[in-house]
Amino acid sequence: MIMAPAGAKRNILERLDAGEIVIGDGGFVFALEKRGYVKAGPWTPEAAAEHPEAVRQLHREFLRAGSNVMQTFTFYASDDKLENRGNAQRFTGTQINEAACDLAREVANEGDAMVAGGVSQTPSYLSCKCEDEVKGIFKRQLDVFVKKNVDFMIAEYFEHVEEAEWAVQVLKTSGKPVCATLCIGPDGDLNGVSPGDCAVRLVKAGANIVGINCHFDPMTCVKTVKMMKEGVERAGLKAHYMVQPLAFHTPDCNCQGFIDLPEFPFGLEPRILTRWDMHKYAREAFNVGIRFIGGCCGFEPYHIRAVAEELATERGCLPAASEKHGNWGAGLEMHTKPWVRARARRDYWEKLKPASGRPKCPSMSTPDSWGVTKGHADLMQHKEATSQEELKPLFEKAKASH
Amino acid sequence: MIMAPAGAKRNILERLDAGEIVIGDGGFVFALEKRGYVKAGPWTPEAAAEHPEAVRQLHREFLRAGSNVMQTFTFYASDDKLENRGNAQRFTGTQINEAACDLAREVANEGDAMVAGGVSQTPSYLSCKCEDEVKGIFKRQLDVFVKKNVDFMIAEYFEHVEEAEWAVQVLKTSGKPVCATLCIGPDGDLNGVSPGDCAVRLVKAGANIVGINCHFDPMTCVKTVKMMKEGVERAGLKAHYMVQPLAFHTPDCNCQGFIDLPEFPFGLEPRILTRWDMHKYAREAFNVGIRFIGGCCGFEPYHIRAVAEELATERGCLPAASEKHGNWGAGLEMHTKPWVRARARRDYWEKLKPASGRPKCPSMSTPDSWGVTKGHADLMQHKEATSQEELKPLFEKAKASH
Amino acid sequence: MIMAPAGAKRNILERLDAGEIVIGDGGFVFALEKRGYVKAGPWTPEAAAEHPEAVRQLHREFLRAGSNVMQTFTFYASDDKLENRGNAQRFTGTQINEAACDLAREVANEGDAMVAGGVSQTPSYLSCKCEDEVKGIFKRQLDVFVKKNVDFMIAEYFEHVEEAEWAVQVLKTSGKPVCATLCIGPDGDLNGVSPGDCAVRLVKAGANIVGINCHFDPMTCVKTVKMMKEGVERAGLKAHYMVQPLAFHTPDCNCQGFIDLPEFPFGLEPRILTRWDMHKYAREAFNVGIRFIGGCCGFEPYHIRAVAEELATERGCLPAASEKHGNWGAGLEMHTKPWVRARARRDYWEKLKPASGRPKCPSMSTPDSWGVTKGHADLMQHKEATSQEELKPLFEKAKASH
Amino acid sequence: MIMAPAGAKRNILERLDAGEIVIGDGGFVFALEKRGYVKAGPWTPEAAAEHPEAVRQLHREFLRAGSNVMQTFTFYASDDKLENRGNAQRFTGTQINEAACDLAREVANEGDAMVAGGVSQTPSYLSCKCEDEVKGIFKRQLDVFVKKNVDFMIAEYFEHVEEAEWAVQVLKTSGKPVCATLCIGPDGDLNGVSPGDCAVRLVKAGANIVGINCHFDPMTCVKTVKMMKEGVERAGLKAHYMVQPLAFHTPDCNCQGFIDLPEFPFGLEPRILTRWDMHKYAREAFNVGIRFIGGCCGFEPYHIRAVAEELATERGCLPAASEKHGNWGAGLEMHTKPWVRARARRDYWEKLKPASGRPKCPSMSTPDSWGVTKGHADLMQHKEATSQEELKPLFEKAKASH
Repeated sequence: MIMAPAGAKRNILERLDAGEIVIGDGGFVFALEKRGYVKAGPWTPEAAAEHPEAVRQLHREFLRAGSNVMQTFTFYASDDKLENRGNAQRFTGTQINEAACDLAREVANEGDAMVAGGVSQTPSYLSCKCEDEVKGIFKRQLDVFVKKNVDFMIAEYFEHVEEAEWAVQVLKTSGKPVCATLCIGPDGDLNGVSPGDCAVRLVKAGANIVGINCHFDPMTCVKTVKMMKEGVERAGLKAHYMVQPLAFHTPDCNCQGFIDLPEFPFGLEPRILTRWDMHKYAREAFNVGIRFIGGCCGFEPYHIRAVAEELATERGCLPAASEKHGNWGAGLEMHTKPWVRARARRDYWEKLKPASGRPKCPSMSTPDSWGVTKGHADLMQHKEATSQEELKPLFEKAKASH
Repeated sequence: MIMAPAGAKRNILERLDAGEIVIGDGGFVFALEKRGYVKAGPWTPEAAAEHPEAVRQLHREFLRAGSNVMQTFTFYASDDKLENRGNAQRFTGTQINEAACDLAREVANEGDAMVAGGVSQTPSYLSCKCEDEVKGIFKRQLDVFVKKNVDFMIAEYFEHVEEAEWAVQVLKTSGKPVCATLCIGPDGDLNGVSPGDCAVRLVKAGANIVGINCHFDPMTCVKTVKMMKEGVERAGLKAHYMVQPLAFHTPDCNCQGFIDLPEFPFGLEPRILTRWDMHKYAREAFNVGIRFIGGCCGFEPYHIRAVAEELATERGCLPAASEKHGNWGAGLEMHTKPWVRARARRDYWEKLKPASGRPKCPSMSTPDSWGVTKGHADLMQHKEATSQEELKPLFEKAKASH
Repeated sequence: MIMAPAGAKRNILERLDAGEIVIGDGGFVFALEKRGYVKAGPWTPEAAAEHPEAVRQLHREFLRAGSNVMQTFTFYASDDKLENRGNAQRFTGTQINEAACDLAREVANEGDAMVAGGVSQTPSYLSCKCEDEVKGIFKRQLDVFVKKNVDFMIAEYFEHVEEAEWAVQVLKTSGKPVCATLCIGPDGDLNGVSPGDCAVRLVKAGANIVGINCHFDPMTCVKTVKMMKEGVERAGLKAHYMVQPLAFHTPDCNCQGFIDLPEFPFGLEPRILTRWDMHKYAREAFNVGIRFIGGCCGFEPYHIRAVAEELATERGCLPAASEKHGNWGAGLEMHTKPWVRARARRDYWEKLKPASGRPKCPSMSTPDSWGVTKGHADLMQHKEATSQEELKPLFEKAKASH
Repeated sequence: MIMAPAGAKRNILERLDAGEIVIGDGGFVFALEKRGYVKAGPWTPEAAAEHPEAVRQLHREFLRAGSNVMQTFTFYASDDKLENRGNAQRFTGTQINEAACDLAREVANEGDAMVAGGVSQTPSYLSCKCEDEVKGIFKRQLDVFVKKNVDFMIAEYFEHVEEAEWAVQVLKTSGKPVCATLCIGPDGDLNGVSPGDCAVRLVKAGANIVGINCHFDPMTCVKTVKMMKEGVERAGLKAHYMVQPLAFHTPDCNCQGFIDLPEFPFGLEPRILTRWDMHKYAREAFNVGIRFIGGCCGFEPYHIRAVAEELATERGCLPAASEKHGNWGAGLEMHTKPWVRARARRDYWEKLKPASGRPKCPSMSTPDSWGVTKGHADLMQHKEATSQEELKPLFEKAKASH
């Protein structure tokens, strides 16, 4: 395997401290939904137990694409979540979590990858806000990850920094390195805490690596991590930074992110990033000082490969799957038609503004009005206009007097 | 005339103090450029002397549309501007200015309108920054307006609040009411002074009415005036507020406004606001507390009519030209085709998202890179990516090792 | 006047026979609607009598822009039309028609322009199809034009070739040259008669000049005239050709044209052609062999000027209004900002794809379903899909059996 | 397995003769390129031998999604193709072809699916046009399929009907049912033979099932198959019909299809069809009388599932993967946010016009000019315009004479 260096694997903090780039994987729930193994709505990961071959194959594809991290497919895998709203399961939560750990480890061992266990926001936080109860949930999940000896932990997808702090505090008890990512944008968490302040609180809670995942497009997430980094530095603290954004363009999102877009989750296709968008993302993340760079919902293996190709010089290696790609799509030099061969160059793809092929569709949506809105969008609303009835006498008068 | 109330005309401050709405006119240079009387580039108003019938007719159309203010067509009418860059003239600056005052007065007298003289930013400010010299230019222009006895003065289209302060100080010497509008957006003037601080400085300099004109679309301008109003109120001061925006959609502008858009000035057609966009604008401006509501470049008479129709109840009258329109396009009830008659209702036009008919054009532009840029646009740039040459050995290695 | 050659004016046929280009004017009802003098819906031309200064000014602007033809503002000016659907008038039809002829003649005499009288399709044709009655209407209109001694006649805006033939037969009795234009697209008239066959019938009926006006965008109209020309040539006949299209992009129209678009008539702004689109149109029309080139709804004076500028070499002159424009917008060389001066070149404007500034709007509309539809649009409809109720048992079964 | 009926599998012709719907699979080269196993450019299927687990997994996903046909992953698998343009292989063509047959059979046996072997257009046809040589290539490929005993044969992806006829003639010698699909649009094959005439020739050559695959979007392909069907019926012949289109919107293609689009193959993301677009496609294909309905490049398993769900009532079953979807996305009823639960209904998704999230991109592209163009696009070109130099004297004259 090209990317597997000799010797024992090093810890994520050893790598980051040494200035290395760590490449994450992509979002499993979206990818496996399209493959037929995850149900949009509950978004639960029972496929780890039900269809291990499908989960294993997706891990392998991300490994081939350059991922250094195999995240266990355990998103929303607590028992209360798994059974939520009538989502009956044939496997117990423990079975699912353990199967997911085993699959991640099996594939990680095929290459230069670490296994990361994960916890995410809970319905309990919103319904009771009782610190002990919420922490208990994280603790029960952590027990499996400790038993299965994952390499490090990620607390991800939190909309409220307080809940993320609680998660970090629990995960720290394992002695493993802890990452914490919020799913917020530049406007801050849902209580209005700024990205900079959020980051400071997470670092103080014990997180070694902080950043953003999900909910917004890559450039917005990088911008938000930059704000977090500036906050941490202003506070005189130290941390590493990570980002795992959507692979969807979301210029029209409000502060709750892509869930409020009318296209979520079954009409997002026109927003999918190209591999060339990913090059720009990877470069920008690197320039900003982020060294753990991955993806979330919408990322397919070729997106991660593009990240790895953009950073190949800095990392000193290309992913295995680049054998099936070539530098900036150089494989096109073998195309039969000369005008397609003429596209086998970086300049062509960097400048392309891809058409949507959907001339009856707009380029931006209005986020769902049930969500929290802000700013300019309000101004476009027309609220207290005069009714037609009121105006009639004036029109009569206008006509008569002329 | 329906809109001419009995009795002597009242001063603009008397009207605003009484809570009335004053409707401005539209932008003459853009409208007359399309009619063949103004040259884009120099944008000078020699047509006032060369083709008075064309200028008179445009004044009349705005009057019929509901304007209470006839602005003299004297934009860029100082001698140094008129001869700038080889723009030779057949008339002197004084001839042009006087002709413009006469035309405005002639038409104002046909209805319920006041005459406003105007000064705007000077090349002298940028080249020497000498207060006395710049004030001298304003003083020479003011002399004509005093001689012709305009009703009030407008200092408009300033990108730096300092120059606008100087203009206000000069205009105040006439004893006439003074308005001051900047052509800035929510990010403030070109020195970074916020809209709120700009407004405070203008009021302190003596302006009775402050606000925004040109450079941005209506909703952006209203938002900026709102920021000015908040600044004035925070400072414990009092003022009236005005807005005279573009009739072009400019969601993609940077802080220098529409001049940096690649479409300026000969490709702006797809951005022109509909009359229904104007209804929303007029309502929002009113809601925010603005009472002098007009237009700038791109406004045609029917745009001003739409503003007047939206505010007909508040003003207690409709403009004369509404006789040729009807409430929310009610004239369509007389169309021959039944499906067009079905469009004679407010609901239809409020909900319409008009198609551009240009499927090979994007919906947003990238402002000219010579201008000042900021924010998200930067992030989309891809600056230090690895070259193809550097990567070749890595691809060779990847292929070989597989 | 630059464009007025010495000597007596020549007849339109003399000009065309000599290989000259004749430039038409633009659409008065749309232009005057925006100026506040025409009501959308009835679209009647009472402004000729009510507000002659406004009509005269528009004629002058087109003359300055290069028009060689002043069409009398008599569209829909028959008495039955004027009073249609409660559209009460203060002037008689005769007053309006005569006033319109006088205004056109007055301005034509100021330059090198001819006066053309016009008739268009009648409600009578559709309601009774009685040839004598319909011809009687055309005859009464013709009487005014003969009395006022217009230079030639135009039968325009016919959706059925049969009615146009009747009009031509009546107009021929005047001894004046006769033009005939249909408002159809490449699919032919509303009875399905092809453009080629329509043209042959019009020439046989006596038309000297045949072509297309209104309803579709310039390139579509040119394409349709090309089909007419091919038909006439195939039939071994001879004629001159003319085109007076919309100034709106209409790639999404069905066979009834822009009236079926949801944006008609109050949301068409984003579709307005730029002056550079007009250059392409004028060149294409010329290349196809059309020599009477003008405009219809949406054309403003600057659009006609662009046509005249594109064909300046062929015509040997520029219009007066080019003094306020310069070659390909050369006036921008006098702009204060260097990056705008850099736009004073043909290459820049030819390549520009103007953004709409409306990211929440699509680029194409679906024509109103009341109209006649055809082709691909049908396929996009989803007609006989299975209901949700029918599927439920299958989903139950799928879940159970797994 | 829900979809596996008891008893021996029936032949594809038995199924179609009985009026059943046969669902095809999706395009392997595009799907596996994104997963990292196929190189765009050569597009060869060596992964069948190199990474069988990846190919097997994709077959399984299509089977779960409802496919009744497992096409062997043998596209471009002739030796001359495999080694074309320096595309060196570690496996022989025979090894790859045999591995592909084994994988297809293994998964087909897990459900109610048939195995189809395939041949496609050859470089030899274009370079020599020698019938014997081209037929020899097809014969060598057929030998493997006969040895591995596939259930039926597909000759697909032909741009010239003559080459497809030759392929059909060779495949008929196997005694197996033969399908033939061209990659053409409504304008016919690259020699201008109409879809109707193409279909007649293929049926006369011995094809049992004729239709279209690749190159155009679903609705365009269905329209073309409809033209084929009309041709066959006009000729008094009988056949079954199939369609396997792209999963990309291509309204802007010329007659060579999506290869000429500037986005091919690495910028097509914004064109990807949603699952709801697939419902419309499946219904339309069914309505037109097509009974073998599948996909080609761009189809992912969830697209095929959507086809199977739309036709569930007619087929009497749902695919296994619908367990992870629910009727029209009913799984959303289990989403945590109420406004997302509100989207769990057909009406919502049918009406959605998805935004691209790319406001700087157009909705339509201009196909690459190296390709064959036609129609309206030409008209948009501006070919013989006057140069700026020629016009200068005229502008001088215009200015002087004024």
